[in-house]
Amino acid sequence: MFKSFRGLPDLPYAVAPREQAKYQSAILELAQELIKRPSITPSDGGCTELLLSRLESIGFVTEYLNKNEVTNLWAKRGDSGDKHPSLVFSGHTDVVPPGQNAKWETEPFMPTIKDGYIYGRGASDMKGSLAAMIVAVESFVKKYPQHKGAIGFMLTSDEEGEAIDGTQHIVQSLQARHEVVDYAIVGEPTTDKQLGDSIRIGRRGSINGTITIQGKQGHVGYPEQLSNPIHNASKLIHKLATKRWDMPSRYFPSTSFQLVKVHSESGAMNVTPAALEMVFNFRYSPRNSFDKIKSYVEKKAHKYGLEAKFAWEHEASPYLTRRGRLRKTVQKVIQQETQIKTKLTTGGGISDGRYIKQLAKQVIELGPCNKTIHQANERVSISELNRLCHLYFRLLEELLIKNNS
Amino acid sequence: MFKSFRGLPDLPYAVAPREQAKYQSAILELAQELIKRPSITPSDGGCTELLLSRLESIGFVTEYLNKNEVTNLWAKRGDSGDKHPSLVFSGHTDVVPPGQNAKWETEPFMPTIKDGYIYGRGASDMKGSLAAMIVAVESFVKKYPQHKGAIGFMLTSDEEGEAIDGTQHIVQSLQARHEVVDYAIVGEPTTDKQLGDSIRIGRRGSINGTITIQGKQGHVGYPEQLSNPIHNASKLIHKLATKRWDMPSRYFPSTSFQLVKVHSESGAMNVTPAALEMVFNFRYSPRNSFDKIKSYVEKKAHKYGLEAKFAWEHEASPYLTRRGRLRKTVQKVIQQETQIKTKLTTGGGISDGRYIKQLAKQVIELGPCNKTIHQANERVSISELNRLCHLYFRLLEELLIKNNS
Repeated sequence: MFKSFRGLPDLPYAVAPREQAKYQSAILELAQELIKRPSITPSDGGCTELLLSRLESIGFVTEYLNKNEVTNLWAKRGDSGDKHPSLVFSGHTDVVPPGQNAKWETEPFMPTIKDGYIYGRGASDMKGSLAAMIVAVESFVKKYPQHKGAIGFMLTSDEEGEAIDGTQHIVQSLQARHEVVDYAIVGEPTTDKQLGDSIRIGRRGSINGTITIQGKQGHVGYPEQLSNPIHNASKLIHKLATKRWDMPSRYFPSTSFQLVKVHSESGAMNVTPAALEMVFNFRYSPRNSFDKIKSYVEKKAHKYGLEAKFAWEHEASPYLTRRGRLRKTVQKVIQQETQIKTKLTTGGGISDGRYIKQLAKQVIELGPCNKTIHQANERVSISELNRLCHLYFRLLEELLIKNNS
Repeated sequence: MFKSFRGLPDLPYAVAPREQAKYQSAILELAQELIKRPSITPSDGGCTELLLSRLESIGFVTEYLNKNEVTNLWAKRGDSGDKHPSLVFSGHTDVVPPGQNAKWETEPFMPTIKDGYIYGRGASDMKGSLAAMIVAVESFVKKYPQHKGAIGFMLTSDEEGEAIDGTQHIVQSLQARHEVVDYAIVGEPTTDKQLGDSIRIGRRGSINGTITIQGKQGHVGYPEQLSNPIHNASKLIHKLATKRWDMPSRYFPSTSFQLVKVHSESGAMNVTPAALEMVFNFRYSPRNSFDKIKSYVEKKAHKYGLEAKFAWEHEASPYLTRRGRLRKTVQKVIQQETQIKTKLTTGGGISDGRYIKQLAKQVIELGPCNKTIHQANERVSISELNRLCHLYFRLLEELLIKNNS
């Protein structure tokens, strides 16, 4: 039917080939149902309820772990133990705002199928992944109703926002009751071009900072009586923008620094401003640290004689999942099913992986193409979602059935 | 009465010592009448009409040269010729807005006398000078009713604003009718600490510029996919802020560059901005030029690989009044009357001097202390105004009577 459907590998699932179309349309339908529900952080738009009912109908025990305005769900099926691990899927129901509607060719919250893609806010980040996870688990449970080990779902409506009342809260609640999680798969869109070409085995840390540099306002005609905060700051800005913070390591690129705002303005053509504000973000590798970066920046500002005030937020620590069964299994399954040697990376933004890693022994992130996330005309390939569902299904098989049977 | 009145030198004027108090109170009254009339550019608040009636009553022929919303006056008394020069006083009736009222200890447009000062918007820039000029001319005409040569007044209500429909328009009108002006005295506040310690014999040129630097917006987590306009601009900003543009010359300080605005903002902590805007002003000496500066900046931006758009406004060309009778006479009168060796300078902001120099052979600017101009609690010393009036009177004598009698 769709051009891009041609040449698809068979999707074995749990079912006979003639039933595959049924599962494919189940993914498509669920993805559309989720996109239809506007769920701008911290709202879940009713997505959680829909997913909960699907999970309950295949035997999951579900539990809301809401906090403040955030809707969180913990769902579990089966029991884990020494021989039978637990595998948790993690995802978020919330999306970023659609931005300028004029740039969209479709309605952001009206899923539209076009040229083999589903268009809509959240299609790739990450309602498509949620649909693929649910259908993968449904087909897995159908094929292995008596599976050993446990399957879990952690869903939140606060990943795109502050991410304080979301997965962090779920993790803390589960830690308090000594819930054991062996493997966690996060559905974040990690694919660069072809499904599975890149997975995340960690993420960089993140630091937000603001520096306010004070000057002395004055008339441009009397330069000797003023102190221009833009001029004063220019050396520091240039230094931070060009500095090499550290060398890349095996899995982490170098720490990167980006200014997201600089503002200084007097309001008049002949008067210099009183102060300058600069706002920036660091994505840092484990070769660096919050303390090292903070101290470097503050010392440099001091050395340059700036009258500066600092505000710091340590948004996220870095995490890394080292070589182990989960990582090896994901690599193997991708190689087998897509003939692609996946790249183990830690790039991109921060994710809930940093919280989950505090609970789960191993965490990897695997999802569809991230090319259009957070943009107008966000979309996901339908064929890619089918194949992603198949990868999730195969991981369930490999981790819960194959080696434990 | 006022502390600062003590130790005043006698003010000879045209009158007997016992009449001096009358002239002093005339200055004080007129300055207050002018401050009372709120005249924020381009409004003259009725100031021109008041000055016109004073000038007409001592035999001036007056003429409005209004343009658009600006009130301009040209007034003349007497005739000039080869042996009898013309001396024109130039001033503006408009003032800058009072700014934040909370910072004023008095009402900005309610002249208030306190500790020997008149407080009010325009007190020193330049309604005080206007009062001193008028009373000086009144006493001069009383003493020398049959003086040779011509006295002129050029008044405008557009000096603090765009200055397009003001003195520039008066000068063009007078040029069109081949009016000859030998000497012009501008009443801008030029005094640093003690009346007469500094006069302007010229002004620097002024250039306004805006550069917009384009980048490519992106997510901070994917630094390789974005081009940060703040980072890109930082080298140029640092270069321009630290460059030595030229060496000071005898009367001109080095060209100075001041950024008055820099702004670049994405609106999100994890997204870099698309573009950066920087706005700046040059005050340049005759060693430099608009073309040289423009070309340097544009070439540097190009060399640094910036995708930049430029907008330029050549606000003012520099002017200089070289050694000649006016300059020498002003120096001599200040030395005689105040025992101060005046400094010949070209500092401070731009003034209407640049237009007048196109008409008058020689232009100097002499006025009261500029410490509080454009600020809250603008004020002028009453004693300083009395002495300024005396200096203007003595200049009239020296230029129109002494050497031509």
